[in-house]
Amino acid sequence: MKLATYTINHTVPRLGVVLENHMIDLEDVAKIKKETLPKTMLELIDLGLPEVAKIQALLDSLTPEEKSNCEYPLSNVTFLAPIPKPRKNIIGIGLNYTEHVAESARTLDTSNELPQQPVIFSKPPTTVTATNTAILHNPKLTQQLDWEVELAVIIGKTGKYVPKADAMDYVFGYTVINDISARDCRRSGQWIVSKGQDTFAPMGPVLVTKDEIPNPHNLSLSLKVNGVEKQNSNTKFMLFNINDLIEDLSTVFTLEPGDIIATGTPAGVGAGRNPQEWMWDGDVVEATVEGIGTIVNTVKEI
Amino acid sequence: MKLATYTINHTVPRLGVVLENHMIDLEDVAKIKKETLPKTMLELIDLGLPEVAKIQALLDSLTPEEKSNCEYPLSNVTFLAPIPKPRKNIIGIGLNYTEHVAESARTLDTSNELPQQPVIFSKPPTTVTATNTAILHNPKLTQQLDWEVELAVIIGKTGKYVPKADAMDYVFGYTVINDISARDCRRSGQWIVSKGQDTFAPMGPVLVTKDEIPNPHNLSLSLKVNGVEKQNSNTKFMLFNINDLIEDLSTVFTLEPGDIIATGTPAGVGAGRNPQEWMWDGDVVEATVEGIGTIVNTVKEI
Repeated sequence: MKLATYTINHTVPRLGVVLENHMIDLEDVAKIKKETLPKTMLELIDLGLPEVAKIQALLDSLTPEEKSNCEYPLSNVTFLAPIPKPRKNIIGIGLNYTEHVAESARTLDTSNELPQQPVIFSKPPTTVTATNTAILHNPKLTQQLDWEVELAVIIGKTGKYVPKADAMDYVFGYTVINDISARDCRRSGQWIVSKGQDTFAPMGPVLVTKDEIPNPHNLSLSLKVNGVEKQNSNTKFMLFNINDLIEDLSTVFTLEPGDIIATGTPAGVGAGRNPQEWMWDGDVVEATVEGIGTIVNTVKEI
Repeated sequence: MKLATYTINHTVPRLGVVLENHMIDLEDVAKIKKETLPKTMLELIDLGLPEVAKIQALLDSLTPEEKSNCEYPLSNVTFLAPIPKPRKNIIGIGLNYTEHVAESARTLDTSNELPQQPVIFSKPPTTVTATNTAILHNPKLTQQLDWEVELAVIIGKTGKYVPKADAMDYVFGYTVINDISARDCRRSGQWIVSKGQDTFAPMGPVLVTKDEIPNPHNLSLSLKVNGVEKQNSNTKFMLFNINDLIEDLSTVFTLEPGDIIATGTPAGVGAGRNPQEWMWDGDVVEATVEGIGTIVNTVKEI
């Protein structure tokens, strides 16, 4: 199921399901079917995959007339980030694709050796923005605004010391994140200022539940700036795959429903190019992951 | 006002005010006075200091008999962390006292030069624990469990690009945090695994509203392990004071009500000693900030 948080005609954010060219509004479905359904993505994630199955059954039972009363053409809706306000910082994974480790070592201050354990950082909830919004560029803070397309994993239930083999039981679904990074903003090596500025986590356009993505370790992911492809790889090249990450992260932290893990970016970032390339006012960046979709954002100088 | 989140006889967490040796329960006060009062610390922070003034007026108006119906001896209550579940990761400040920069450079991988800008990291909400709880030590993850007493600032209203001179308008109050750090858990230099493990942010015992602390830049802060003093300094020795931090942080992030800034620790951490000292199962650590109180935690091997 492709779930979205969206608005239509400036309503408060609503939860919907994308079906072909339409948004099926779950508040409308609930009314028509006299059922109670969650109003936000986090409420739905808390209820878990059984609630997704219940929603699917309700959608399947809609008559054509009922369906016409709860569907809106996608051209009329505004997508918000699937989780507009996460409950904690996004968990970011650095240096998780071999070629990106190499390009980073050439041009940033990271090691050329492959990490022995996942490299972890965080992005505050205030970084989250939707597709078709601006990435705010403060030129007083950075002259090195960079892109990073990533598959993001949404955690579905509380987990501590999760064995690798059971990790997928803890996944609710997936989305796309563009892990915007200001390369000249590291402080004593810490990445949070680089990764954590407002709007530095475009996310969406939808949250795809895991049943629709049988193998998350074989998804192409790519990124364009002003129409020119800059990144193109596949999640099969992750150094630490999703099972590895969940085992490791859950050893350090208690994972909780709604947690978001941005699993790292492949090669092709601006910092790794010769000459280096950065984004500037008006640049349009499109980040795509197979099976999920594309988020498009425009850089806006502030 | 000294605000607390607490339980009594295993109730759900309640909001209270510490007056001498008693907890004044705000749910009881609300009932007696037929008023609506916030039920959680975050709700109160969202309402802001006018709500604190309203509570103060209600407390002042209690007759002795009314008061006796809403007060509980402190010996009968269990303190939770003032904000048991923050809405985002705690914002930590590293290397913010001169002598601690020096001791860190001697024994960790940090620079001996004073930072030119605040060094920022984060601690997830799952790190938060109360006074009189266990700090969980996983010896498979770390053999270098260390302490750091810190003054924590609680943000009271949304702020972006806050000028230094206005910074105090954005403060709601203060608490104590022990920024527990596993020195051998840095990964590619990132501190979140070192700082972010479950229970690594003992916090409390109370949240003191800012009116009770006219000068937060002249508070003694100290820490004992098993009764032996390890840290003893004063917040006047911060490199970046609270005004500096709020100006800087609000340039990077939008600050929001309920945000917690742990302002850094003075010298005397275990890593900086010769020989180095670490905490082990059964060790008792007491962190104190003048005007707020002491949090006491026991290390427990898991």
